[in-house]
Amino acid sequence: MRVHVAFTPGEQTPATVGIVVDVLRATSTMAQALAAGYTRVLCCAEIEEARALAETEGDVKLAGERRLEHIEGFDFGNSPRELAGAPPAETLILTTTNGTRLLVAAAARFEQVLVGSLLNLGAVARAARETGEDVAVLCAGVLGELALDDAYCAGRIVATLGGEHMDSAAAAARLAASFPDSQSGLGASRSARNLRKHGLEEDIEWCARENTLDVVPRFVQMVGPAAEVAV
Amino acid sequence: MRVHVAFTPGEQTPATVGIVVDVLRATSTMAQALAAGYTRVLCCAEIEEARALAETEGDVKLAGERRLEHIEGFDFGNSPRELAGAPPAETLILTTTNGTRLLVAAAARFEQVLVGSLLNLGAVARAARETGEDVAVLCAGVLGELALDDAYCAGRIVATLGGEHMDSAAAAARLAASFPDSQSGLGASRSARNLRKHGLEEDIEWCARENTLDVVPRFVQMVGPAAEVAV
Repeated sequence: MRVHVAFTPGEQTPATVGIVVDVLRATSTMAQALAAGYTRVLCCAEIEEARALAETEGDVKLAGERRLEHIEGFDFGNSPRELAGAPPAETLILTTTNGTRLLVAAAARFEQVLVGSLLNLGAVARAARETGEDVAVLCAGVLGELALDDAYCAGRIVATLGGEHMDSAAAAARLAASFPDSQSGLGASRSARNLRKHGLEEDIEWCARENTLDVVPRFVQMVGPAAEVAV
Repeated sequence: MRVHVAFTPGEQTPATVGIVVDVLRATSTMAQALAAGYTRVLCCAEIEEARALAETEGDVKLAGERRLEHIEGFDFGNSPRELAGAPPAETLILTTTNGTRLLVAAAARFEQVLVGSLLNLGAVARAARETGEDVAVLCAGVLGELALDDAYCAGRIVATLGGEHMDSAAAAARLAASFPDSQSGLGASRSARNLRKHGLEEDIEWCARENTLDVVPRFVQMVGPAAEVAV
């Protein structure tokens, strides 16, 4: 099993299984939602798409943010913490630009697309290993560049996964090992600084907790403009 | 001064100054050639382009390799070690697929393009810092993915350069600091393993020596299909 890491969305890493990572906060939110009892998450890029899906998809709640601000009429921000504290609906509609784009691009290139975070670290690594196939961890990054939070999470995933590490995976594992803990690893990133500025530092702590959830969200299908993720 | 690192050629890092890095071995060879007395290096992608330039560009020597094998009729491989041990000509024509592509792409996007390696680490960092502009270190990578040798060299450059490190630069610096020395940093890469397989391990040691050369090669202009590099 060869293991690759793509630190930015444009990289064409060859593998059968893709694990998407946008750890602060989209993929952590997806894992938390499914663990909290939602049957599926529909990820879409645009606010208006989310509102339209809310009209047609039955028992739904709406989550998302724009520049870390609340969206009018939405039930939640893009916060796993908020989702864990409220009773679930059947479907969570989540609007997140990077997360959606990453899922859709991965679905076009990989036979299986899993959703990774630190919350479900062991579960997603085990599921990927059990396929016996080559694996690529696909980081959302920031503005087309490596994001430390995603690279840290990718490093933890590949270290947990084992296998034959390509240079990219070895680099991610080394980078992750250079931090004393997940709180420091995520906390050193620009994304974390932005969350702190908006008073959302508790989300960093929340997302930094390893192995609190035993779910492996997978890309299932497109539902209109949205990528459906379920366990 | 903001400092970015692009670990793969596709990344669109914003900056004014680009430092290209293909440390095993193209950019080390360019720095060594100019330090050894060549006036310029013409980097081209194709063997036939190199041979045609040799007919028109006067006092030249030819260097390059394909899959780490010697090219018929060429004076040197893509080896800084060989270049240091022979009297120079006016022009070195170097054929290297990645190195040339990287230079040409960088020249289209950055106002200034410098050539970085460990051999000229301090010199290239100082030259970049003296511009006072934002800097991006551009790694050749391997097959569109991060290469440990280039990422290591990028990390040493940004650590030497200082400035405000974007997440990508911070990751590179941390990665480099995780190795005890340059020999280990370059030696852990897939490129190094390939060089060892071809009996070229001395080139790894050669390229791992920091600050042995005080040259800052720069992209000057295109000469037909070749990127001209000079100090």
